[in-house]
Amino acid sequence: MALIHGGDAYGFMLEHGKAPLDFSANCNPLGVPSGVREAIRNAAATADAYPDPLCRELRIAIAQSMNLPPSQIQCGNGAADIIFRLVLAKRPKRALLAVPTFLEYELALGLVGCDIIRFPLKKENGFKLDEQILDLIDTDVDLMFLCNPNNPTGLTVGPELLRRILDAAHKAGTLLVVDECFNGFLAEPQFHSLRTLVPSYNNLFVLDAFTKLYGIAGVRLGYCLCGDEELLASILDSGAPWSVSSLAQAAGIAALKENTYLLKMRALIRAEKVYLCNNLMRCGIKIIGSEANYLFFHTGLPDLKKRLGERGLLIRDCSNYPGLTQGYYRIAVRSRTDNERLLQAISDLAEAAHD
Amino acid sequence: MALIHGGDAYGFMLEHGKAPLDFSANCNPLGVPSGVREAIRNAAATADAYPDPLCRELRIAIAQSMNLPPSQIQCGNGAADIIFRLVLAKRPKRALLAVPTFLEYELALGLVGCDIIRFPLKKENGFKLDEQILDLIDTDVDLMFLCNPNNPTGLTVGPELLRRILDAAHKAGTLLVVDECFNGFLAEPQFHSLRTLVPSYNNLFVLDAFTKLYGIAGVRLGYCLCGDEELLASILDSGAPWSVSSLAQAAGIAALKENTYLLKMRALIRAEKVYLCNNLMRCGIKIIGSEANYLFFHTGLPDLKKRLGERGLLIRDCSNYPGLTQGYYRIAVRSRTDNERLLQAISDLAEAAHD
Repeated sequence: MALIHGGDAYGFMLEHGKAPLDFSANCNPLGVPSGVREAIRNAAATADAYPDPLCRELRIAIAQSMNLPPSQIQCGNGAADIIFRLVLAKRPKRALLAVPTFLEYELALGLVGCDIIRFPLKKENGFKLDEQILDLIDTDVDLMFLCNPNNPTGLTVGPELLRRILDAAHKAGTLLVVDECFNGFLAEPQFHSLRTLVPSYNNLFVLDAFTKLYGIAGVRLGYCLCGDEELLASILDSGAPWSVSSLAQAAGIAALKENTYLLKMRALIRAEKVYLCNNLMRCGIKIIGSEANYLFFHTGLPDLKKRLGERGLLIRDCSNYPGLTQGYYRIAVRSRTDNERLLQAISDLAEAAHD
Repeated sequence: MALIHGGDAYGFMLEHGKAPLDFSANCNPLGVPSGVREAIRNAAATADAYPDPLCRELRIAIAQSMNLPPSQIQCGNGAADIIFRLVLAKRPKRALLAVPTFLEYELALGLVGCDIIRFPLKKENGFKLDEQILDLIDTDVDLMFLCNPNNPTGLTVGPELLRRILDAAHKAGTLLVVDECFNGFLAEPQFHSLRTLVPSYNNLFVLDAFTKLYGIAGVRLGYCLCGDEELLASILDSGAPWSVSSLAQAAGIAALKENTYLLKMRALIRAEKVYLCNNLMRCGIKIIGSEANYLFFHTGLPDLKKRLGERGLLIRDCSNYPGLTQGYYRIAVRSRTDNERLLQAISDLAEAAHD
């Protein structure tokens, strides 16, 4: 089943009789912010009414925080909901992806029978996107998905190359969909975001989510920014109405006020990333990407996912991504206590492998 | 915009500066049950984790309450989400509807360019479905939507005719999708439901929602029952994963324990329906359907929706349904205080019209 491509924490629970320590999902290690929890609790009392299908109050709040008009914003039941609606609204005949990347793009494109051109990120370049991608952006390409920072590699596109991609797509009439769902976890988010260019480029579509950044993956809330307001309207019509619950709308409005939470989270991620990377490298593991709140690495340690699973630790085996093979893994950055448990387990396995 | 086909309580609020008394949405007048509110509040604390994409715990709970295997149940982000996914999974070339009926069917079918055969419910029969529909069920019809009780008419299909439709569809190889979202509001729900036949008829697809029955329209939670497990799997893949939030899953599990709430609600609806019907008839209004928790009626009172809107009352103007014209309206059955306000306003308008 396509749905269970990740760590499947619930399947783990059913199989092992207890919840895993889940490094396979890139959630915020600080959990649900208290202000957001409070907003959900308050919204529960009036959840008998239908949600606003147009998410008007939430869109105004996002607009203010982004300095964009509400008319250039649309919300969805998680970013994945927007990806599927966009593909149904746009019905691209040919789409370009740099792989490995987030799997939902291909799943959504498959629904409309789209031809997919896969530009392989090269192992020898450390999976970094290079300018050869520009040669593939032509008038035959209706849509290009670009995940920045990329999932699962944890790498950003160089800002200069990103700008050249946008210009090439503009020239070719290609809709450039930049998925910035992990942008907020970067050390310098604004340096890597195209959102300020949304009003100037009609072919630019920026995707983002509250889900990851604000630790509310269970609530489901994503949004997109686009200057092509007709496209935004047809996205609304390309799926069920009322897709964003009133609980999610209330959570989003409250989340936008959580600035201290974001600062605290960034400091934690920064410190823990250094700690994890140093200790993983000591175990002989090669870190490939670490710009966001997760690490992408390669190791020859045999059956790593299975062995860690036996110790109650769930990680993401990335071997099923197009363009990857055995030995590639992704882990989320979690709290010090959790990270210590993972490192101890990996260090034990590394020692055993060398005996 | 297709999304705002109902009463648009939020638009009303923006226009009038205050929330309307909303008779346009068929929500449960008892509001969110306290046990469900509590479940949402508790689930908010752990909403940083992704929801189970397969809704395993919730499906087991539904299975127990329905006496069906969990493998014949799938959940969605409201019943509307399931309608859109089903259409994308099945991609019918030709579909049959008895109109007027719930508008989402046509919107979803439009996404796959399906030919729609509309069987008109006849005004002279009081919009009751009759056996002439059987003549239209043949091997060319891939799918038939049947809303029972029907929205907006508030009428059930006679149980004998319903069974004949199911048999005809079975013989023709037509998938019969029976939308039972308002079944729980009927005086005798089990007498009108086909859900016990799900294991015996592979071509039967029963749709239901927690949204309306348990007063959680803002939370979004629907489900479907079908013996064709391959079809259920392809529904999961025909849209974004994690579409049912963890808050909704917790709400659903808690809702299934709310038996006293349902009894209380049914008693309230029964009493208030009689009260509303009697008083509306006194104003010269012709009640057409009243089997569920809403009333469908016709009146010559001019600009009824607009006039009531001026008094802060929102009702559903049904003139935009295929098969209906000016003068048809739908109202939800609400609490005595609310119903009194509506009746007073209508009675004032009726008197003014006769002056």
